[in-house]
Amino acid sequence: MKKVETIHWDGGADGTLWLIDQTLLPTEYTQIPFSDGNVEGVWEAIHSLRVRGAPAIGIAAAYGVVIGLQSVLEEMDMEKFFHRFAEVTDYLASSRPTAVNLFWALDRMKDVAAQVRKLMEITSSFHPREVMNRLLAEAIAIHEEDREICRSIGKYGAELLPDGAGVLTHCNAGGLATADYGTALATFFWATEHGKKLHIYADETRPLLQGARLTAWELQQHGIPVTLICDNMAAQVMREGKIQAVVVGADRITANGDTANKIGTYSAACLAHLHGIPFYVAAPKSTFDLTLATGDQIPIEQRKPEEVTHGFGRQTAPDGIEVYNPAFDVTPAKYIAGIITEKGVISPVTKENIRKMLED
Amino acid sequence: MKKVETIHWDGGADGTLWLIDQTLLPTEYTQIPFSDGNVEGVWEAIHSLRVRGAPAIGIAAAYGVVIGLQSVLEEMDMEKFFHRFAEVTDYLASSRPTAVNLFWALDRMKDVAAQVRKLMEITSSFHPREVMNRLLAEAIAIHEEDREICRSIGKYGAELLPDGAGVLTHCNAGGLATADYGTALATFFWATEHGKKLHIYADETRPLLQGARLTAWELQQHGIPVTLICDNMAAQVMREGKIQAVVVGADRITANGDTANKIGTYSAACLAHLHGIPFYVAAPKSTFDLTLATGDQIPIEQRKPEEVTHGFGRQTAPDGIEVYNPAFDVTPAKYIAGIITEKGVISPVTKENIRKMLED
Repeated sequence: MKKVETIHWDGGADGTLWLIDQTLLPTEYTQIPFSDGNVEGVWEAIHSLRVRGAPAIGIAAAYGVVIGLQSVLEEMDMEKFFHRFAEVTDYLASSRPTAVNLFWALDRMKDVAAQVRKLMEITSSFHPREVMNRLLAEAIAIHEEDREICRSIGKYGAELLPDGAGVLTHCNAGGLATADYGTALATFFWATEHGKKLHIYADETRPLLQGARLTAWELQQHGIPVTLICDNMAAQVMREGKIQAVVVGADRITANGDTANKIGTYSAACLAHLHGIPFYVAAPKSTFDLTLATGDQIPIEQRKPEEVTHGFGRQTAPDGIEVYNPAFDVTPAKYIAGIITEKGVISPVTKENIRKMLED
Repeated sequence: MKKVETIHWDGGADGTLWLIDQTLLPTEYTQIPFSDGNVEGVWEAIHSLRVRGAPAIGIAAAYGVVIGLQSVLEEMDMEKFFHRFAEVTDYLASSRPTAVNLFWALDRMKDVAAQVRKLMEITSSFHPREVMNRLLAEAIAIHEEDREICRSIGKYGAELLPDGAGVLTHCNAGGLATADYGTALATFFWATEHGKKLHIYADETRPLLQGARLTAWELQQHGIPVTLICDNMAAQVMREGKIQAVVVGADRITANGDTANKIGTYSAACLAHLHGIPFYVAAPKSTFDLTLATGDQIPIEQRKPEEVTHGFGRQTAPDGIEVYNPAFDVTPAKYIAGIITEKGVISPVTKENIRKMLED
């Protein structure tokens, strides 16, 4: 069994960033190194989904800033150094312009840079290596915080899963999308590492098959029993009594608990409801968007038809066919038995309970 | 718009059978001719799913018998002629040993052959062309009866579909699986040919994508508005209020109305139930198996994992992953608003109503 490390930093400020090339999974496991100022490589890795998942993108971008500055590690002109910093952060921000965590992580790096710069201006002493060390420390902190969040979600979620349970999950809310442990999958990792037996059913998750390509692979790497199913088989598996809980991740959760997540999540929630199976969402507090009262306010983004008609190397639908391809759907709070956060489980899912948990 | 003719016979007993090569759909529309005794070609077409769907296989096999006998069209030795007949029917029976309609159609051909032979033995006069004409007439009758059944199902089913409705279907219960009009799809063809407007949502139907490859193509050919979706999007489409009815076909219906059909049908029925949308099954009377009291008595056949893991021309899941790949599922009668047969609609779906309809 390999240790799956989605993102790994090796060395000091002049060190190397390693990323698993997720586009080659599940048939090939390769870690790509980035060093010597190769921020173009990091940009391309984010842009081409070699690294994906909101937290993982943020962490990669933070390290990417350090990589980009390696070319000015000996630059004694402060203006030139911070000019390069601005260049690098702007450049990385363009790698996936819709990824909220990307901007959030770059903003944290900018704040640190601004603080250090101010201090150095006051003391009239500029040390590029010291700036780099502070930036690397921030990237490591972002990485470490995510690791802690995932561990905590795993711990709280594991308590909800009965020993011997069959658990359905959808898409990939795993270590590959985060520092290394995931959100939904963190609950499986924690439970099995602490002695529970689980059998996971992974929806393949059309159209992009993250369940088949990533979740099935990740669970297999961890030695957790996993059965791959097509999305339309979930109801039958539930009917056969094989599923005792459903756990999924989340893209965005509104003030009342309505949850946007990968298309097909709402379907799984409906089926769980009809079969009397508890349906859980695992997500860090940062996933909540309290500016939206309910899920009705979330516009459903449409993706290109080719994902459905030309999925994996060949055309499987007639030319010119109309396709409906929403990126995600919204599961109403009433179908969610609990939301597992790093601070504990919100259950029942109500506006008040959400507010209380986030205020803590 | 092309006329979609799944199976076509051209000429007399020495004529030509034309089949659409369904393995090339939806990217290529080709009709393959079979003549001059080429029963091996017909066998291969059935075996390789160039023609598929229970009724279509039966019709193709019946014509295949005539094709196989073209090599003895001038054979004046009765023994030799009927020896060839037995050879041809045995051979065709081995093309898809699990297809019930194949045996049913070959049995009808055998009955006709036996009758004619008996008559010729009595009159001591053997005319190979006359036998051939009788066999061709029987094949045409099987073809024609199926056409009538489909038309009748279409007519009864169309009455259930409101003008302007959005209708979801799963898999391919269309003309490509029958003489030319289908069962579930017959209701759409009849409704739109008689002035109703419909918009069909076609589940792509993993793992083999019959919805994307065949249903979407067939509806497109008929000029009926159709939107292709992944199976896991059906719930979302329902939630958006786009679906007013679901119509699917059936593989087998038990005495109480429980219905076995392509995997994913039960999921669609659950979702329809939860969204308050009527769910209909369209199937000829021959689909009922009254020897089974309920669907629990139907064993669920498992198909090979590669259909899920290597579905699209490349490997999309890790080596050695466990796969659950049931060929079909069973929808309980309680979720079925009506069963549309060639004799009328069974509704509510009860044992008594089924018995009454089948006895008529």
